Amino acid sequence: MKIEAFFKLSYGLYVVSSAHDGKKNGFIGNTVFQVTATPSQIAIGCNKDNYTCSLIERSGMYSISVLKQDVKQDIIGTFGYHSGRDINKFEKTGHIETANNTPVVTEDCIAWFECKVVKQVDVGTHILFIAEVIENDLIEKDGEPLTYAYYHQVKKGLAPKNAPTYVDQKLLEKERSETSSGAKKYRCLACGYIYDPDEGDPDGGIAPGTPFEDIPDDWVCPTCGSTKEMFEPL
Amino acid sequence: MKIEAFFKLSYGLYVVSSAHDGKKNGFIGNTVFQVTATPSQIAIGCNKDNYTCSLIERSGMYSISVLKQDVKQDIIGTFGYHSGRDINKFEKTGHIETANNTPVVTEDCIAWFECKVVKQVDVGTHILFIAEVIENDLIEKDGEPLTYAYYHQVKKGLAPKNAPTYVDQKLLEKERSETSSGAKKYRCLACGYIYDPDEGDPDGGIAPGTPFEDIPDDWVCPTCGSTKEMFEPL
Repeated sequence: MKIEAFFKLSYGLYVVSSAHDGKKNGFIGNTVFQVTATPSQIAIGCNKDNYTCSLIERSGMYSISVLKQDVKQDIIGTFGYHSGRDINKFEKTGHIETANNTPVVTEDCIAWFECKVVKQVDVGTHILFIAEVIENDLIEKDGEPLTYAYYHQVKKGLAPKNAPTYVDQKLLEKERSETSSGAKKYRCLACGYIYDPDEGDPDGGIAPGTPFEDIPDDWVCPTCGSTKEMFEPL
Repeated sequence: MKIEAFFKLSYGLYVVSSAHDGKKNGFIGNTVFQVTATPSQIAIGCNKDNYTCSLIERSGMYSISVLKQDVKQDIIGTFGYHSGRDINKFEKTGHIETANNTPVVTEDCIAWFECKVVKQVDVGTHILFIAEVIENDLIEKDGEPLTYAYYHQVKKGLAPKNAPTYVDQKLLEKERSETSSGAKKYRCLACGYIYDPDEGDPDGGIAPGTPFEDIPDDWVCPTCGSTKEMFEPL
């Protein structure tokens, strides 16, 4: 099997949210796709281990928020790399609730859909929830949606382990292990982000050329917010 | 329902092919997505009216070819806007056949997958075929996949009527009906391509600024190959 061939499939990146019995949660998903136009039906894939999956199964409702291309990294970090069993992901993230109490992330999103499940399909590690769109909105008409390709190339994100498109990171490490200065690259064990000394982390105040060892201790992973202890050299 | 919100969902564009009992066919699809990583399973959506749909139902096999960004328009035209009941789509298109006799388009494609159906789900106008990848290949490691957004923006393609993402073209006409010269835009009734006099069709030998009426009669639609008679003014 040529694993790199799977990288040629194109996806967007979304926050999928649901609520049941006062509990709400959401996760970053890439398998979101319209399956019919009449009526408007959308299907999503959801790992059975995801807390949100059980909320969707019980409520029969979910929302999809289309992330914009320049979404803040901490929204990806909060919804993509933490479990809602541990934290309230909505606490610091702009969102609304629909008339059916479905939470919808709106911060850094350009459109959203509220969906009512009409069919669920067991596909092994994941469940496909096929749902009819009952409400939606366009937040930013000219906004560019975040795609998986953009995230992968520009922001160096890697799919978390329970994503349908997860690829063993060891396969990709070799090509990423060389820097011009000889300083080592480091990988975040929580999310897979690679710190490259040649590039630094300008958004986080770390100049290009800074070896990982010289980064201040209060620096956090730009993708998921983990501290330096979560990093290991490649 | 805000129809424009659906435009914010991201997709790639693929040729989905199948064969049964000596008949083979393929169509352009955008609902192709990996649903699990272990094992590698891919799902596709297929309109029940598509000839290919019946071939997949009977053979239980299909292939997916990832189109490259600069795919020739006539491949889109042949596979996207004609029925395999009328023509042999593979006649003029580079392809291979697998050991299972599944046809696989390789011309202007960067990767492909051969898939064996494990489950099929009726979602109304369409069927979802969930399948295990049994063989695949990467044709062009650095090739950029064609996305629906790129096709929509750059090549002005519109989904054919039996696509899951079909949107009534009349909704989009108004914004497209103004040109700087005052010359009218024309739409191809076969595929929805809009001829804009301001832009012309340089690849087809029509200079920017050429009114539709002045285009030679042997010119054909750059998307689907239809003749001028198939066009109507917006």
